[in-house]
Amino acid sequence: MEKWFNNNYSPATVLSTKIKKSLFKQKSSYQTIEVVDTYDFGRMLVLDGIVNVADKDEFVYHEMMTHVPLFTHPNPKTVLVIGGGDGGIVREIGKHAQIRQIDLVEIDTAVIRAAKQFLPKSALGFREPRLTVYNLDGAEFVKTRRPAGIYDLIIIDAPDPIGAATSLYSKTFYKHCFNALKEDGILTTHAETPSFKKELKILHSTYSKFKTIFPIVELFTASIPSYSIGIWCFILCSKVHHPLDSFKENRVNRKKINCQYYNAAIHRAAFALPTFLKNEIQSQQK
Amino acid sequence: MEKWFNNNYSPATVLSTKIKKSLFKQKSSYQTIEVVDTYDFGRMLVLDGIVNVADKDEFVYHEMMTHVPLFTHPNPKTVLVIGGGDGGIVREIGKHAQIRQIDLVEIDTAVIRAAKQFLPKSALGFREPRLTVYNLDGAEFVKTRRPAGIYDLIIIDAPDPIGAATSLYSKTFYKHCFNALKEDGILTTHAETPSFKKELKILHSTYSKFKTIFPIVELFTASIPSYSIGIWCFILCSKVHHPLDSFKENRVNRKKINCQYYNAAIHRAAFALPTFLKNEIQSQQK
Repeated sequence: MEKWFNNNYSPATVLSTKIKKSLFKQKSSYQTIEVVDTYDFGRMLVLDGIVNVADKDEFVYHEMMTHVPLFTHPNPKTVLVIGGGDGGIVREIGKHAQIRQIDLVEIDTAVIRAAKQFLPKSALGFREPRLTVYNLDGAEFVKTRRPAGIYDLIIIDAPDPIGAATSLYSKTFYKHCFNALKEDGILTTHAETPSFKKELKILHSTYSKFKTIFPIVELFTASIPSYSIGIWCFILCSKVHHPLDSFKENRVNRKKINCQYYNAAIHRAAFALPTFLKNEIQSQQK
Repeated sequence: MEKWFNNNYSPATVLSTKIKKSLFKQKSSYQTIEVVDTYDFGRMLVLDGIVNVADKDEFVYHEMMTHVPLFTHPNPKTVLVIGGGDGGIVREIGKHAQIRQIDLVEIDTAVIRAAKQFLPKSALGFREPRLTVYNLDGAEFVKTRRPAGIYDLIIIDAPDPIGAATSLYSKTFYKHCFNALKEDGILTTHAETPSFKKELKILHSTYSKFKTIFPIVELFTASIPSYSIGIWCFILCSKVHHPLDSFKENRVNRKKINCQYYNAAIHRAAFALPTFLKNEIQSQQK
């Protein structure tokens, strides 16, 4: 019997993709973890029914979350990743030789185990010698981490705001992130698609919270088929460095970091927003 | 009973969206024409089972096909649209006051009738006083049109390369288009998504044909959920004017054309290609 994976974008729109083989299913203390192998998207890590990583396009997400801030910051040394248990973000950070310390806080060790077993491409990140893994709650970690102000960059790679991950979408958490950053620190997170109402609401809410905390808050976009149709949004928050004004193309070209999606032109282009999206964001700020 | 519209991206991936009401279905001399009203995409014009226009995002497609070339050309006066029977492209051209003549060649009058009845937003284009509609085969039209070299811009708004539209993907047709353009003329067309193999093949084939005819051939992209997941490609071909080098931001800002997607930053950003897509295109040219 044919098995299909259903990605429910809304109550009235669903993307179905044919499964070659179901590889793994486990209920951890925090969520249901599944790995399926599909014809069109390759292997997919699915958390509580939502696609988290897909072989086909994980590089778009992981590269944009990582290289956009690391090439905005003139001299990043220390990075904190909240979530990111598949390892893909750490793999990308590892491409930057000047990074000295990578801390990853993943509450669910079962995700890391599943990634190591079934997603070898993403899990490459766990071979990184500069990496320390903390099996803790990300929100608790940034709240209690001492000394404050030690990170150049925080990347929030959290699942959707349901269940255990809800605390990673609170204003309090974002304030603790601000405090955990150095005085010229940067933060990036993903922020859904504006294509559907429920997701647009999360985008608005996340953006608005950050606007009350960071002086620089900029939306940037990419296309990630396995997550949703339409534009996929990210948010870059910064204390000092602006992602376009502080950006030096020649740093990207000189470093020759091997990417499949990110390049210097894409860095600039990602911040050009369609008029409807600019209007959406501005209407919220009035 | 619930009815869903299925958009088959590949044999293993399908996007299903719930239909509110089926409004129209007719087999014309050229194709099966349907109009369905959906919850998430609004009204959709479907030709031979493939989405041609959707209320939700038709503006992205129509604006990018039109304003990118019209703001690349320093002084466009005459435009030819091949296909485009829904009227959306003409609606966008009409926003440029300096345009003197718009010729639209749509082989299937049934598409125009359906658009006028069910897609009032796109069909606004047919109120345009500078418009002449020719109910002819687009390939024949550009082959026999005299005098040659009278258009500043040709927009090829053809259905997918099946059935009647196949001739609109041939090298001979593209050569006739080249001849129908003035000596500094521009052409735009859509060129599928690189997300799936079959579509990537069409993209490669279209791009390669144009490369043998026009001195300037550049890919640009946007996100059009109703057409496909991932990046949607367009091609701009030009005899003289380069879409970035010849582009003046302040012309866009001064003209204040009312758009929902297109703006000066988006114009530049659309030509920034992800590394994998640049490599795809370059590999084909070797």
